[in-house]
Amino acid sequence: MAKRTSRQTGKEAKVVELYKSRTSTLQKRIKKDEAAADALLITNPKDIRYLTGFVGDDSWALVPMRGSVITILSDRRFEEQIQIEAPQAKAVMRTKSLAVTLKETMDKRKFGKVILQPDYTTLATRKAIANKVGARNVIEFDDKLIQQRSIKTADEVKTIKEALVIQQCAFNQTIAEIEPGMTEYEIAALLEYKMRFLGADGPSFNTIIAADANASLPHAIPGKKKVKAGGIILIDWGASYNGYCSDMTRVVALGKMKPKMREIYQITLDAQMAAIDVIKPGIKLSDVDKVARDVITKAGYGKEFGHSLGHGLGLDIHEEPRLAASSKGVLEEGQIVTVEPGIYLPGVGGVRIEDDILVTSKGHQVLSDLPKSLESAII
Amino acid sequence: MAKRTSRQTGKEAKVVELYKSRTSTLQKRIKKDEAAADALLITNPKDIRYLTGFVGDDSWALVPMRGSVITILSDRRFEEQIQIEAPQAKAVMRTKSLAVTLKETMDKRKFGKVILQPDYTTLATRKAIANKVGARNVIEFDDKLIQQRSIKTADEVKTIKEALVIQQCAFNQTIAEIEPGMTEYEIAALLEYKMRFLGADGPSFNTIIAADANASLPHAIPGKKKVKAGGIILIDWGASYNGYCSDMTRVVALGKMKPKMREIYQITLDAQMAAIDVIKPGIKLSDVDKVARDVITKAGYGKEFGHSLGHGLGLDIHEEPRLAASSKGVLEEGQIVTVEPGIYLPGVGGVRIEDDILVTSKGHQVLSDLPKSLESAII
Repeated sequence: MAKRTSRQTGKEAKVVELYKSRTSTLQKRIKKDEAAADALLITNPKDIRYLTGFVGDDSWALVPMRGSVITILSDRRFEEQIQIEAPQAKAVMRTKSLAVTLKETMDKRKFGKVILQPDYTTLATRKAIANKVGARNVIEFDDKLIQQRSIKTADEVKTIKEALVIQQCAFNQTIAEIEPGMTEYEIAALLEYKMRFLGADGPSFNTIIAADANASLPHAIPGKKKVKAGGIILIDWGASYNGYCSDMTRVVALGKMKPKMREIYQITLDAQMAAIDVIKPGIKLSDVDKVARDVITKAGYGKEFGHSLGHGLGLDIHEEPRLAASSKGVLEEGQIVTVEPGIYLPGVGGVRIEDDILVTSKGHQVLSDLPKSLESAII
Repeated sequence: MAKRTSRQTGKEAKVVELYKSRTSTLQKRIKKDEAAADALLITNPKDIRYLTGFVGDDSWALVPMRGSVITILSDRRFEEQIQIEAPQAKAVMRTKSLAVTLKETMDKRKFGKVILQPDYTTLATRKAIANKVGARNVIEFDDKLIQQRSIKTADEVKTIKEALVIQQCAFNQTIAEIEPGMTEYEIAALLEYKMRFLGADGPSFNTIIAADANASLPHAIPGKKKVKAGGIILIDWGASYNGYCSDMTRVVALGKMKPKMREIYQITLDAQMAAIDVIKPGIKLSDVDKVARDVITKAGYGKEFGHSLGHGLGLDIHEEPRLAASSKGVLEEGQIVTVEPGIYLPGVGGVRIEDDILVTSKGHQVLSDLPKSLESAII
C-alpha cells in the first residue's frame, strides 16, 4: 500500500488540482439538468478513484454540487490509506451503516437532495438510503462519469503505456518458452506470472489462451488443450498497472501456419490496419467499425466477424466509446480505444488482432507496438 | 471451456436433479411471502451458476414460481456453452436488449409479475425492466439465495477441498523459494503462478503478502518492501477452483521470530483453536466470535483484534454466515466458515491465522491442514 501511494509524492499539488478539475467538470454538467440536487453520491469504486485518488473499497464518496471538498464515507480499515491517497478529501470513519453515516453527513453539510448513480447503485442500497434521507430526497440521474472518464490526461496515457510495456515484455518472454505439448492454462499461468513479476497489479481481465479450434470461441477459457507444432494460439491478454488496463490480442503459429489460417490472418490484419488508419478526432464511431468490416466482408468473411470492432479502456477494461455499427457519436482527442477485428471459423480456428490506439489532436498514435506481420506471427 | 464443462460428463442426471432441488427450495421459500409473483429474475452470475450450472456472464436467468424449467436470457456468444453447461435450461439467444427479451419471454410463458434481486439489480436495470414489463409488475424481494447457498452439498465440499489442496501445495512450494531480499509482490506473483499452474482458475481474492510492519494493515497490497532475515511475512491467500473459493492465512518468520511476535502468534493461535473447538450445529455465530475474542482480550490485546472472526465461503469469497459479535443466528450443518483471529500492532507487525472449517452433523472438520504451531512458522 505504501508503495502504491508514494508514486504520488512530489506531485501532490498537481494531483489535487486534477481531482478538483474533474469534480468541477462533473458538477457543471449535472447542474444543467439537475439544479435541485445538493450532492451526488458516488458508489462505483472506479469513479471514487477517478474523483479522489482513493483506491479502497466498501466506501462511498459524497460530491457536493457547490465547492470542491468531497467527503469519503469509509471505516477505520481505510483511515490511513485515505490520508495518503486522498489528502484533499474529508474522511468520515463510520461506526454505523453507510446509509446512516450518509444521512448524518448530509445533515451536517445541510444537503437536502442527493443524486444516486443508477448504473452502480443497487435497489437494496437505494432503499437503505431512502429510508434514512427520505425517498423524495433521492434522485436517480445518469452522471455520465463514464463518458467523462473516456478523455484521458497525459498521466493516464503514460500509465496505460506502462501497462502495455509490461504486457508486451511478458508476451515476448512467454512465447520464447512456448513449446508443443504445453497446455493453454500453463501458458496463461506463465504469462500472468510474468506480468505480475514485471510490476502489474495483475491481469486486466481473464487471459484467453485458445489453441487451434478453440480460437473460434470468442470467450474461450484456457483449458487442458495442448498446443501443437503447426497449430495456432490466440492470445488475448492485458495488464493492470496502477489501476489502469491495457488490452491486446495476437495470434501465433508454432513453426508454420496453415494456408486457411494465413488467409484469414492477412485479411484480419488488413482490416485492422485500415481501421486504425482512419482514426482521428471527429470520425464517427460507426464509421471506424465499418472500415474494418468492409475489408472482411469484401474478402467473404463478413458473417465470421461477429462482434464489434473495439472499445475504450482505462480504469475499466471496457469503457466508452464503443467502436460499433450501432454506436452514436464521434471519436474525441484523448480517448484510447482498442481496434480488434476477428474472423472465426467454428471447428477450425480463429484470428483476432488487437492494439490500443490513442486519438491525438490531428490523428492517432498506436500505443502498442508488438510486431504483427504474418511472418512475425510464426514462432 | 470444454474442459471446465466436461467435468460434469457422466453425472449429468445427478447434476440436473441438484439444480431442480435448489430451484424448488428457492420457490418454496419465496411462495410463502410473495405468492403473487410468477417468476424471479436472477441477475447475479454466481446465483445463475448455482441454479443452472451456466458460468457465462451478460446473461439473466428467469426462474418460474411453478415448474422447474429456468430460462436463460443470453446471446449467441454463449449458445454452445449453455447447451453444454445447462442442458436442462431453456436458452433464449437475444438480438434485442435484455429487458426487451425478458418482456417477450414473460409474455410467452404468461408471466405477469416478476421479482428482482435487490442486492444485485441496479436502478438502471430496474428502470429498463419496468419500462418494458410495467412498474406494477416489478417486485423487489430479497430471495435470500445467499443464505440458501451457505449450506454446501458433498460435491461443493469436495471442490473446496480441492481448492485447498491447490493453495496449500502452492504455499509449500513458494515458502521453499522465499529468501531474504525478495519483495512482497514477487512472492505474491510466485504464489499465484503456482496456484494457477496446479489447476486453479486463479486466486480467489487479491493475495496479501505483508512483511513486518505491513502485516499490521489488514488490507495490505503486496508492494516493493523486501522480506528480511528475522522478519515475518503475513500471507493471506486463496485458490478459486471450478468456481469455488478457499481462503487461508499463515504467518512465517525467516530464520527466527522476535519475542513480541512469538507472543502474539501464540495468543492468536490459542484463540483460533479455542474458537474452532466450539464449532458445531446450533452454536450462536456471535458465541464463536466471543470465544476467540475472550482469549485475545484476556491476554491484553482485545483492541488489537479489530475485525470479526470469520465468514462463510463458496462461489463467493465472502458468503453467509458471518462469525461476528453482531451476527444473529446459529451455525448449521453443511456450512463452511473461515476462523481467522488476528492481533495487529501498528508499526510493529501483525499475526492472523486462518483455516476453513466445515460444520458437520455432530461437530466440525478442519478442511485445511497446513501446520501452524509456533515452531512450524519459522522457516
